[in-house]
Amino acid sequence: MIYLDWAATTPPYQEAIDAMADTMKNFFGNPSSAHTPGQKAQKLLRKSREQCASLLGCKSDQILFTSGGTESNNMIIYSLIKAREKGEIVFCGMEHPAAALPVQNMAKLGAKIKQINPDQAGMIQPKKLAKAINEKTRMVVIMLLNNETGVIQPLEELVAVVRSAEKEYGRTIHFHSDMVQALGKIPISLDRYDVDSASFSAHKFGGPRGTGILYLKRERDFLFLGGGQERGMRPGTENLAAIVSMTTALELSLKEDHGRIKKLMDSLIEGIGAIPSANLLPPERIFRREDFCDFILSLSFPPVPGEVLARVLNEKGFAISTGSACSSNKKSKTAALTVMGFDKRITFSSVRVSIGRNTTKEEINDFIETLNKTVKELAVI
Amino acid sequence: MIYLDWAATTPPYQEAIDAMADTMKNFFGNPSSAHTPGQKAQKLLRKSREQCASLLGCKSDQILFTSGGTESNNMIIYSLIKAREKGEIVFCGMEHPAAALPVQNMAKLGAKIKQINPDQAGMIQPKKLAKAINEKTRMVVIMLLNNETGVIQPLEELVAVVRSAEKEYGRTIHFHSDMVQALGKIPISLDRYDVDSASFSAHKFGGPRGTGILYLKRERDFLFLGGGQERGMRPGTENLAAIVSMTTALELSLKEDHGRIKKLMDSLIEGIGAIPSANLLPPERIFRREDFCDFILSLSFPPVPGEVLARVLNEKGFAISTGSACSSNKKSKTAALTVMGFDKRITFSSVRVSIGRNTTKEEINDFIETLNKTVKELAVI
Repeated sequence: MIYLDWAATTPPYQEAIDAMADTMKNFFGNPSSAHTPGQKAQKLLRKSREQCASLLGCKSDQILFTSGGTESNNMIIYSLIKAREKGEIVFCGMEHPAAALPVQNMAKLGAKIKQINPDQAGMIQPKKLAKAINEKTRMVVIMLLNNETGVIQPLEELVAVVRSAEKEYGRTIHFHSDMVQALGKIPISLDRYDVDSASFSAHKFGGPRGTGILYLKRERDFLFLGGGQERGMRPGTENLAAIVSMTTALELSLKEDHGRIKKLMDSLIEGIGAIPSANLLPPERIFRREDFCDFILSLSFPPVPGEVLARVLNEKGFAISTGSACSSNKKSKTAALTVMGFDKRITFSSVRVSIGRNTTKEEINDFIETLNKTVKELAVI
Repeated sequence: MIYLDWAATTPPYQEAIDAMADTMKNFFGNPSSAHTPGQKAQKLLRKSREQCASLLGCKSDQILFTSGGTESNNMIIYSLIKAREKGEIVFCGMEHPAAALPVQNMAKLGAKIKQINPDQAGMIQPKKLAKAINEKTRMVVIMLLNNETGVIQPLEELVAVVRSAEKEYGRTIHFHSDMVQALGKIPISLDRYDVDSASFSAHKFGGPRGTGILYLKRERDFLFLGGGQERGMRPGTENLAAIVSMTTALELSLKEDHGRIKKLMDSLIEGIGAIPSANLLPPERIFRREDFCDFILSLSFPPVPGEVLARVLNEKGFAISTGSACSSNKKSKTAALTVMGFDKRITFSSVRVSIGRNTTKEEINDFIETLNKTVKELAVI
């Protein structure tokens, strides 16, 4: 099986698996316990937190360990429940469901929500964001790197819009960015972005499942309460083994050779572009390479249904997906392409190919060859 | 180091560590992906769910995998946020903070809360619960086995009170029980208790950290939203490796020889009882053995402060705790003993000793001998 669905999840690094097993065995103490096994675990937890902070470009007390991207997004969005005035939330129309759905649910819980859509290239225009913000805006939610198309938002400009609005209205506006797909795919340094919070998930960069990070610039009140872990902000006995495993993966993933990945994406784009019925989505993908990451490629071969293409390729030994794995059982499979303005004929036939550290040139060549044949076979039916 | 703090956390079974590493390596696919690696993971997830259900005495669609006990408790309690009429919540005064604090927070979010306290033996009297319930009661939260004292609640009688109140008032009342400390320590069969939901945490029974179960009798709406995993009730890419590891630990922990543990607790109670200044907490611990589990013993040697005793014993190579690990950094260290009516002299000096599958008779003997000496040394100061 040739795995070309790295955006859905990545095979963990062997080093991350070893770190998990080693920590489970040798550091089993509860980091909240005052005794030696507990303090030994606490010390390792502190070290991991410092390493993650240093790798992400923030301070260690700005790192909260969570159970993953979904929890990180939900906890920050629902932190608004405690506010007397829920105000307004502005969010990007192509957020992952783990951010879009809690925002939409906040509408039922007293907040007003405003969706802003990207242009056809997948970009949120800073001017559009500026228009959507007013004196009632409490939070802005915009992802850094889209999981379906690989498009990268101009985050610094978007944050600047919010900072300027804060000055204008004399109140703070929380800027949250889902960076789950971004970490490991593009360089991230949190001190550069100036966001108030950001979500990360270990299994997207070769780490274990069920663990992630919420970067938080300043302390905040959250809904979930318990034993006071993570300075009271994220309770639950610390998942030390997974945290150490994630830290190991983070360090390795940031050292990967992105030049090699870029070359693979070059040949993928070139090879697929040569198939007559191919649409690269969006077309800007080809001539605005710097606006997209080199790990994810969205494409379609209308009228071949994406689901059929993915299934037939799977039978031929290639694992790709339609949209995100998280929405593979749902009606709206391609939120990003839809809000970018593509018609149903295109979104219905779209598939996502995503590569990773183990992907080889041979795999890409095999894939292009098989894809070419398959598309021709299916178009005839 | 002799580890006598098994109630805080347990060293994982080697088999659980191996299952974690093996699943991370060989079943890395995202269970929501339609392709072969995804479906292979999905199949293993389904098998684990069925095994857990069978071991806990419920149906597999009543098992939701979560990140642990804290999340399980919080999600069920905060599910009330969506209700227009928040109504009243009745909860036991010695709940773990992971249940007590979200309940208390619901008071700020529109619910009325009523705390009921146990008698001096640690038991919630069914009559007391009956008095606290009225036509506005929406939820009752009572743990099965207390983490500080090991006392076991008469859960079937308490649930019967709620079921009878439901008939009287013609509306449903949700009975939630935190069973985090109970699983692996006393026999649990969910079909016997008739609760509406129950929380479990893998690291309390030899499984991995960061994973647990919410047993849920009937489907329910929850606050957190995302990719639709766990039938939409608990979103986030499924933590398959941890789930398989937990299932392995659950199966092993239920096969442990409880007769052996009972004998260890017998000698612990006998040995400690022979120390002149010893108080077993509560005193009913000695003559009502069936009301307490054989894994946890609460005791005190007034006026020796519990914190000092635990620290000195740690220096001598024995890891025990004061109250629960989750509250080891907080003021109220002994919620259970306090609400049971013990005075400050006793609660201030209390410590908790908890044993587990690896505890040996020699460890218990060594501990009693050292404890005896230490208490005498400290009493002189």
